[in-house]
Amino acid sequence: MADRIWTAALVVIGDEILSGRTQDKNISQIALWLNLQGIRLGEVRVVPDVEDAIVEAVNQLRARNDYLFTTGGIGPTHDDITVDAIAKALGVPVVFHPKAVAVLEGYYETRGGATPMRLRMARVPEGASLIENRMSGAPGICHGNVFIMAGVPHITAMMLDALSGKLEGGKPLLSHTVGCWIAESEVAELLRATEKAHEECQIGSYPFFRDGKTGANFVIRSTETAAIDACAHDLVTQLAAIGHPTVDGGI
Amino acid sequence: MADRIWTAALVVIGDEILSGRTQDKNISQIALWLNLQGIRLGEVRVVPDVEDAIVEAVNQLRARNDYLFTTGGIGPTHDDITVDAIAKALGVPVVFHPKAVAVLEGYYETRGGATPMRLRMARVPEGASLIENRMSGAPGICHGNVFIMAGVPHITAMMLDALSGKLEGGKPLLSHTVGCWIAESEVAELLRATEKAHEECQIGSYPFFRDGKTGANFVIRSTETAAIDACAHDLVTQLAAIGHPTVDGGI
Repeated sequence: MADRIWTAALVVIGDEILSGRTQDKNISQIALWLNLQGIRLGEVRVVPDVEDAIVEAVNQLRARNDYLFTTGGIGPTHDDITVDAIAKALGVPVVFHPKAVAVLEGYYETRGGATPMRLRMARVPEGASLIENRMSGAPGICHGNVFIMAGVPHITAMMLDALSGKLEGGKPLLSHTVGCWIAESEVAELLRATEKAHEECQIGSYPFFRDGKTGANFVIRSTETAAIDACAHDLVTQLAAIGHPTVDGGI
Repeated sequence: MADRIWTAALVVIGDEILSGRTQDKNISQIALWLNLQGIRLGEVRVVPDVEDAIVEAVNQLRARNDYLFTTGGIGPTHDDITVDAIAKALGVPVVFHPKAVAVLEGYYETRGGATPMRLRMARVPEGASLIENRMSGAPGICHGNVFIMAGVPHITAMMLDALSGKLEGGKPLLSHTVGCWIAESEVAELLRATEKAHEECQIGSYPFFRDGKTGANFVIRSTETAAIDACAHDLVTQLAAIGHPTVDGGI
């Protein structure tokens, strides 16, 4: 029987991403972290700070994935509407989480006090638990299979760290990269045949143009180390046979 | 009457983004370019190299936006399935575009010849026109309100350049940033009230922690220059009144 594949989706919430002002870093950060947990990032949506858009994305994606992550919109200001929108999606009221209130009161004790606006960050969908955030006090939020994280990448990183090893997953998706100074179009048929001969592997081809030369990195992905090794060996041997040495690990 | 708002959606196609291997740069690049065309990027999806996922995203998003852009999956290799998937979404067959064939034959004349695998890049959904790509020969594709672009960011940039000024849009969304060394939670109420007083503007608050200090950039967005100026002046005056000088243009 094939191993069960665990999947996650990500909803990136924020006008600053859609306006182009901010370069998103959470997609790749969360993707890499999920790989280590044996969970695959299956789809991502970027939505504006608009309640209906958040509700639609959250409800579609939490239903068809094992886990749903969100980033952004959990700060203290008027444009932070993520908690309210997700509570609406879940059909539960927003409540103050006593532990989050205590955490924020402690954090702001020496930083000007836990004002009502700051305590907005202790609001959660009813029934939620907290995800620790050693960086700035304000915690992430977990409700069922929904994980609500910060938008600022280094705070998100702290929250992911707090979740490491705590989510059930399957075998991590492994990869091995082989680089070659060749136009991918010259080896398209070779790649196709090699992938077909190694059923447990997928081969991705990522061309580039550098120092005036054309090259490509071929990324072999599988959950099985032995399968990756066999596929990589086959690919390297075939490329060598047509006069193209490869660079293990990629160029 | 309010001006009509033109919107676009983007579907980023590629396992390499979802695996975390590649940091996406097309979302912000396309968002910034769209702003200049007077079109707003309203939503983004990242989907794997899987036909059903591409079809679903393309059909949902092209129906509810003025324009739909895709990036990725239009190269010559087996993992490039974008054209076939979009043709399926559009309900048309895939055909060779004569001009694309001619372009590729010309481009590869001195580069080893237009092999059958390379000519795969001349395949388009029936009825499509081409988007010029001076960088690598292989063109982008336009079909109705769907624009199929490369995944490699500098090739995408060339295609966007070829499209500049050719899509109907509305007034560009303008923005002005004001930076301040202050915790955003201290001014949450001030921001909310300022936004409310300036109906034509939205204010986004983007906190950061740098050099051991807490700060935030406040981004005022509107289609009207005068409205942005009035809002920015109001915000700067109020922040100064509580002892916080601002940095015009952001920190």
